[in-house]
Amino acid sequence: MKHASAGKYRPYPQVDLPNRIWPTKTITHAPIWCSVDLRDGNQALITPMNLDQKLSLFSLLLKLGFKNIEVGFPSASKVEFDFLRTLVEQKLIPDDVTVQVLVQAREHLIDKTFEALAGVKKAIVHLYNSTSVAQRKIVFGKEQDEIIALALEGVDMVKERAAKHDGEIMLEYSPESFTGTELEFAARICNAVTDRWGISAERKVVINLPATVEMATPNVYADQIEWMSRHLTNREHVLISTHTHNDRGTSVAATELALLAGADRVEGTLLSNGERTGNVDIITLALNMYTQGVDPELDFSDLETVVRVVEECTDMKTHERHPYVGELVYTAFSGSHQDAINKGLAYQRSKEDPFWEVPYLPIDPQDVGRNYEGIIRINSQSGKGGVAYVLEDKFGYSLPKKMHPEIGRIVQQVTDEAGRELTSEEILDIFEKTYFGEPHDIEFVDYSVISESAKEHSAKCVLEYTHNGKAIRSEGVGNGPIDACKNALMVEYSHNFKILSYSEHSRGELSSAEAVAYIEIQTESLEKFFGVGCDNDITVASIKAMFSALNRAFS
Amino acid sequence: MKHASAGKYRPYPQVDLPNRIWPTKTITHAPIWCSVDLRDGNQALITPMNLDQKLSLFSLLLKLGFKNIEVGFPSASKVEFDFLRTLVEQKLIPDDVTVQVLVQAREHLIDKTFEALAGVKKAIVHLYNSTSVAQRKIVFGKEQDEIIALALEGVDMVKERAAKHDGEIMLEYSPESFTGTELEFAARICNAVTDRWGISAERKVVINLPATVEMATPNVYADQIEWMSRHLTNREHVLISTHTHNDRGTSVAATELALLAGADRVEGTLLSNGERTGNVDIITLALNMYTQGVDPELDFSDLETVVRVVEECTDMKTHERHPYVGELVYTAFSGSHQDAINKGLAYQRSKEDPFWEVPYLPIDPQDVGRNYEGIIRINSQSGKGGVAYVLEDKFGYSLPKKMHPEIGRIVQQVTDEAGRELTSEEILDIFEKTYFGEPHDIEFVDYSVISESAKEHSAKCVLEYTHNGKAIRSEGVGNGPIDACKNALMVEYSHNFKILSYSEHSRGELSSAEAVAYIEIQTESLEKFFGVGCDNDITVASIKAMFSALNRAFS
Repeated sequence: MKHASAGKYRPYPQVDLPNRIWPTKTITHAPIWCSVDLRDGNQALITPMNLDQKLSLFSLLLKLGFKNIEVGFPSASKVEFDFLRTLVEQKLIPDDVTVQVLVQAREHLIDKTFEALAGVKKAIVHLYNSTSVAQRKIVFGKEQDEIIALALEGVDMVKERAAKHDGEIMLEYSPESFTGTELEFAARICNAVTDRWGISAERKVVINLPATVEMATPNVYADQIEWMSRHLTNREHVLISTHTHNDRGTSVAATELALLAGADRVEGTLLSNGERTGNVDIITLALNMYTQGVDPELDFSDLETVVRVVEECTDMKTHERHPYVGELVYTAFSGSHQDAINKGLAYQRSKEDPFWEVPYLPIDPQDVGRNYEGIIRINSQSGKGGVAYVLEDKFGYSLPKKMHPEIGRIVQQVTDEAGRELTSEEILDIFEKTYFGEPHDIEFVDYSVISESAKEHSAKCVLEYTHNGKAIRSEGVGNGPIDACKNALMVEYSHNFKILSYSEHSRGELSSAEAVAYIEIQTESLEKFFGVGCDNDITVASIKAMFSALNRAFS
Repeated sequence: MKHASAGKYRPYPQVDLPNRIWPTKTITHAPIWCSVDLRDGNQALITPMNLDQKLSLFSLLLKLGFKNIEVGFPSASKVEFDFLRTLVEQKLIPDDVTVQVLVQAREHLIDKTFEALAGVKKAIVHLYNSTSVAQRKIVFGKEQDEIIALALEGVDMVKERAAKHDGEIMLEYSPESFTGTELEFAARICNAVTDRWGISAERKVVINLPATVEMATPNVYADQIEWMSRHLTNREHVLISTHTHNDRGTSVAATELALLAGADRVEGTLLSNGERTGNVDIITLALNMYTQGVDPELDFSDLETVVRVVEECTDMKTHERHPYVGELVYTAFSGSHQDAINKGLAYQRSKEDPFWEVPYLPIDPQDVGRNYEGIIRINSQSGKGGVAYVLEDKFGYSLPKKMHPEIGRIVQQVTDEAGRELTSEEILDIFEKTYFGEPHDIEFVDYSVISESAKEHSAKCVLEYTHNGKAIRSEGVGNGPIDACKNALMVEYSHNFKILSYSEHSRGELSSAEAVAYIEIQTESLEKFFGVGCDNDITVASIKAMFSALNRAFS
């Protein structure tokens, strides 16, 4: 790429840090975790969470073991204010959990924030202002001393209201856009803030050093954290907090190296929710520690529930290759990998020593509620859409989503028996045998409409079919052709059932090609079955689909 | 998580590396890039690529500027063998590009590999065997010396055939599972291999040190690379290559720190395709360099094409927050971010200096063919399914995929004008006005079936409608009700059109709820329009959908 003007981008400056010690360290214990899912994460959603979703996510965060939870920016919007009030009024905040609220250094916002905090026993008030070179110059037009004065005004206002608040208030200060700020200035403003607050062993302060935008390789962030750690006054009473974003794809690394460099606390989200490329993913960080024998002090033993709740709350999908949680992460496609894993699992079961040493599996999938899935390409996805994908992509059958688990299970049985990859044609064969194959207790013969009127919402039809070989002809009336046909059938048919859903689509151009219909029925014993029918006529396709479902249910 | 047995996981050992120098370095030039999309990436796909997909991906890799491309494992499967032969026979390999093939140390596989290479001018033969503690013990039951002997047998076989091959053959050797191998043993086997090959300035060897499984924080991988760099004999003739996987979410970091530590070459894939969590993403690595003013020697100025081709070839989706390429990466949701970006963009336009300093945007989106998208939440997704999602999730309209771009464009126009977030109700309003609203040149009145027979594939109907206010009644015959109805319409209607596709679904239980039909038509001037119809009767819903499309096309 040579189209950028010379000088458009410049290397990020190195940190002058003689005798850095972080590369000699390892992570030996969990940091204080702070979830910012409900604030930074929520702000970055196409559709922000509603109250129910926020409550559901808050409850998940408690279950996982978070003790610091940023619940929002209550002075910025009614829903964030109401959410915090709901937590207080419904007594949903356990005694050992500290809620955190974000606010800027403006009097009316700080007043509103303390109004929202009334009744909270333990809170962190998270004050921030942007300190970066670019923002000072372009956005605010302020000098360094003016930026410090702004921060200290905020501290005074928070301090005054905290004194009157019935409960503990801890201060968190962020020099926002820290990675775009000169280190000397960052240390100066942070030291001014902690001094004005009156930092002490009893009044610890969180100094949060955000990679608001990730701007350099992660070793540079570690250097910055170690540099700050050396230059913060009263270091022993400061909790250095990281808050990394993933612009360069290295937020996990930056956070880990920052922990080596002395950070005490980590802000992040579940599954990397957050502006642009997202915040650092706490699941990955915690499980990285877990696989080194370090207790992460968060419980991710049921990852499927975590993913489900987060996806329901954020409407974001999780990538198939996301570390620890993706659909494909515990699947081995390569034959030599499968062989080594199978030998490793056998060895693991046979030995006394609990040490996990299975090739290609950095974690025991069962520790996080998953299973190792190897062997068959189509198998690994069969319950989840792989089968549906093949049927649609290769053969034009666009199955409704509700039908995927049923066909998935049926194909899985065959692949489990076969123990090998299935071809697309074999999948089609299973599909056709299941929905069009034997047995055919009842068989469709013909159908004709006697009358159908859109105005009157009524249809009358004659249905011809065979039941256990006996030819039957009956008439039915209904609010549409399928309903009429079902009623015609029920004149003699003895099995009761309900139609739950249907869908239909054309294959190719309508004039030349056939229609495919899918009908889901439910029997009296509440079992559900899909049926499939194909015909040039969309009504006939639907009727055939109903017959297909009935044969599957009652043959 | 306290459910793991004590001792199940252990900390990864640190590297004894006094005076490590990599933390003092920066990346100043691009490495040799080697794409393994067509091998490691392809092996990890649910449905491996077919020949056409491989050719399309190979062509993209050339266009991007890759000079080393691993084209597969030609001795392992017919399709990989045929692919390489196609490249040779169709003369698709430029003179400055080296193709790379993977093979194990077995005679018949090496023979087959050289058969596939016939006619290739420049090739790397990539020989590997697993050297890790776990694999030696569990999978092979072999001692260190036996593993070295195996590698050297492979070298001898490759050397003998390379001497007869008409073209340049370079050797690459991988101690597979390097991150699970003792460093001393890794150095010993690599040195034995290069010695046996006869390494020299004219016979350079690629030593690839894969993080086959990522097992530690990325600084440890950098330490390992620096350690190896110090312990490889003839270091100046060795090209140290990295090949990282993303099990701990730090493959980008591990690769970058390895480059600081002296690696010369990087193997990876586009968008992190590969086993489990994937290989390192070369797009992220290259653009990380680009934003530091380092020419990556790969051209990612048209990222949309890259993503489209890769997705077409791999059937994998790209996450919305994937660095540089995700849908949401250039979107700002937060008001203060939007404000700062807008001020930054204005500042950037106004100044002489080309230096990019827009807050919250680490790269100029236009450098990679994207635009900054702020302002409207629904807007950011409207072309891609956000609108369809709202319509389905909130109102039960499950639009066919082919219809998403049309409704996306329509909503986008409104949001662009409004300049703000739209509510779900406003989206519904746009949808209803578009498909059910004015003008209604032709209007459906009634429809009745005269006869319909499944056996004869024929239907005859009477259609009543108005055209510019005039009441019309006509009869039609067709192979099904829609076809009959279209023919009834064409008795008097003057606009010619073709029905391209339709689909239909129920909303709620069939007995009580209505059906929704979607029909796509094409006019004589090849314009395409969707129409939507709702009715209790599935046939009537389809007819109404056809009328809706006609009003949109011809009113």
